[in-house]
Amino acid sequence: MKNMVYIQSGGPTSVINTSFYGAVMEAKKHPDLIDNIYGSLNGIEGMIDDKLIDINQEDNEQLELLLQTPGSILGTTRRKLPKDIHDPVYMSIINTIKKHEIKYVFVNGGNDSMDTCFKLSLLCKELNLDVQVIGVPKTIDNDLACTDHSLGFPSAAKFVVNTINALSMDAKCFKVGKVHIVEIMGRNAGWLTAAADVLPEETRPHLIYLPENKFDLEEFLKEVQVVYEAKGYAMVAISEGLSFERPNKNARVDGFGHAQLGGTAAALCEVVEERLDLPTRPVEFSLTQRACPLCISKVDQDEALQTGKIAVESALKGVTGKMVIFKRISQKPYQIDYQLADLSLVANAESVVKPSMMIDHTKMSQEFKDYIMPLLEGEPKIKFVNGVAPMAKFKKVLVK
Amino acid sequence: MKNMVYIQSGGPTSVINTSFYGAVMEAKKHPDLIDNIYGSLNGIEGMIDDKLIDINQEDNEQLELLLQTPGSILGTTRRKLPKDIHDPVYMSIINTIKKHEIKYVFVNGGNDSMDTCFKLSLLCKELNLDVQVIGVPKTIDNDLACTDHSLGFPSAAKFVVNTINALSMDAKCFKVGKVHIVEIMGRNAGWLTAAADVLPEETRPHLIYLPENKFDLEEFLKEVQVVYEAKGYAMVAISEGLSFERPNKNARVDGFGHAQLGGTAAALCEVVEERLDLPTRPVEFSLTQRACPLCISKVDQDEALQTGKIAVESALKGVTGKMVIFKRISQKPYQIDYQLADLSLVANAESVVKPSMMIDHTKMSQEFKDYIMPLLEGEPKIKFVNGVAPMAKFKKVLVK
Repeated sequence: MKNMVYIQSGGPTSVINTSFYGAVMEAKKHPDLIDNIYGSLNGIEGMIDDKLIDINQEDNEQLELLLQTPGSILGTTRRKLPKDIHDPVYMSIINTIKKHEIKYVFVNGGNDSMDTCFKLSLLCKELNLDVQVIGVPKTIDNDLACTDHSLGFPSAAKFVVNTINALSMDAKCFKVGKVHIVEIMGRNAGWLTAAADVLPEETRPHLIYLPENKFDLEEFLKEVQVVYEAKGYAMVAISEGLSFERPNKNARVDGFGHAQLGGTAAALCEVVEERLDLPTRPVEFSLTQRACPLCISKVDQDEALQTGKIAVESALKGVTGKMVIFKRISQKPYQIDYQLADLSLVANAESVVKPSMMIDHTKMSQEFKDYIMPLLEGEPKIKFVNGVAPMAKFKKVLVK
Repeated sequence: MKNMVYIQSGGPTSVINTSFYGAVMEAKKHPDLIDNIYGSLNGIEGMIDDKLIDINQEDNEQLELLLQTPGSILGTTRRKLPKDIHDPVYMSIINTIKKHEIKYVFVNGGNDSMDTCFKLSLLCKELNLDVQVIGVPKTIDNDLACTDHSLGFPSAAKFVVNTINALSMDAKCFKVGKVHIVEIMGRNAGWLTAAADVLPEETRPHLIYLPENKFDLEEFLKEVQVVYEAKGYAMVAISEGLSFERPNKNARVDGFGHAQLGGTAAALCEVVEERLDLPTRPVEFSLTQRACPLCISKVDQDEALQTGKIAVESALKGVTGKMVIFKRISQKPYQIDYQLADLSLVANAESVVKPSMMIDHTKMSQEFKDYIMPLLEGEPKIKFVNGVAPMAKFKKVLVK
């Protein structure tokens, strides 16, 4: 038997299930090469605990709904595996691979997950197992190295752009305006926050603060005051990863040991009220920005489908220890080439906004706009039933 | 000359400009009866300060974009006028009416705005002015009296329903789940929060807290713990208007003297972490729920267009001191009748969720579902250009 297993890892995106769908559809075309298609429940945990489900048991209708279903349909985890690949936990994974005669492993995730993927490929080689391990890039933060961008980022950026566009219309219509501080995800990378800059002058944020730059609270207050005095309101886009002394000291950490972010906008609003005596409104996009089926970019969706397909094709060709990456080969018309990069180069590296992409706190450069604009293109048709976009529902039949 | 003026008041909605568009399109059909179509800048302030703009100067293309433009295109205000209609501020309004030969006044707003509308109609009668004053219902809170529902509520409810649907997929996919507390607008009325109950079992909030019921913190903690232990995560929908002792004492008030709400989810998450030692995630829908062109309900859009039209038709028939209301005359198929109610009955009354509509903190009744379901129906086509839904842009040419 030659079976495949698909693993979804880390924080989900709006298209995380689309690349999975792409991989499943491609795998189904090769019944001669792939006997069974399995999904690992809750990321790598399913491999450790031997909890795999049989994807062939799922209805086609539900598989198709994956295209508009955010959240990892297979479940995910933030568990970080030990550095030492000889830790017993890795042998549990190997046991699952052997027990279920798995020849193809696909790991869909961000930086941390690619590290897991890399270690797994190393271990398989060391143990002389004929197993292909392939990474599928995913993160709304867009901070994966070696690739033009990551799946999920374009749709999250489209959410940010369109939501700030609409919020600005709301913000600017009051006689006495407020300082609106909008908090956007991205950890140490400001890609998502910067995206808002593509909006027309009337709805563009007046100020944009990225974590790539040192955050100076005094400078921030000065800039906010200048905008408020000139416009009668202010729309400020900030990245959740801004580093400044917060009133709330009870920082929490997730399973990967990263601080759980959020609350930055509320904290900055407090400072603005206290120091500038201006009315404020914090808006935190929170989980909605990574889980909005209504803002999926067609480019993101198409690329997710294609990436899942290419991951399977590559594995079938015997490739291992690589992640699918995108190289932009043409700007107008936008065109990318799908390539493969060594996981060793991707794992735990971080791609952030280049200094040349930002002019100052009020404007991104043309280079950035050229980069982001094509990624937002196209609106896939979303299915609605009685006013609600249905979500895929899996039976999740465990493989014995 | 017989001119009309349109006033947008209070907090905007996703369809506030659609009812305006409906009124303008109807008015344009009667050049014999309406000479000029004016808009009052920033709600009643434009009437006080003589700042009216000429809507005939706006391009058709921009007028059509009103259908997908949130925020009040004419500007709005939260200013509450004095109780005494002989206060000089009312005479400023009358002067503007006289100066610009206004015969028709339309006020689009919620409870407070209908109070203004009512007073204006009284004063015109007292002064023997031949002016028709008509109210157009609007509030995402759905708390206007005398009407089945208010414009803007269905689209906001559609946002709440679809966003929680997607968030639940994200929330439930982690091995170690969190207590997600989602804060929804509505002031003293729980309509919007309750809407989430229409979702299927898999994505419906486990717990729903409305401001109509006394909020018992100890009971809340107990209920959250029970859900978390059973499900491994919790999705809790709370109304911003819940009354409980908050850590943050610096409550702010808006121009109508209401407390500025928000921050309730964050405050409750703090309590859950401290008392139950469970991981949490606050999500505040904030302004996005009332300013999301991507969640407009077709029913809401159609009714907004129709209401604008009927307001103008009624004024032309000589009606004054009334608000357009909706009477539901059939449930299946959903059908409403447009009627008129005395502003005196609407002004400052409040419609809240009926006790018979809620079973307990885990479930709304069938009566509520029958009420809300038809309002969510239909998805209007939204125009996108380069991945962004364009917003209407007005020239705003002042009338001399």
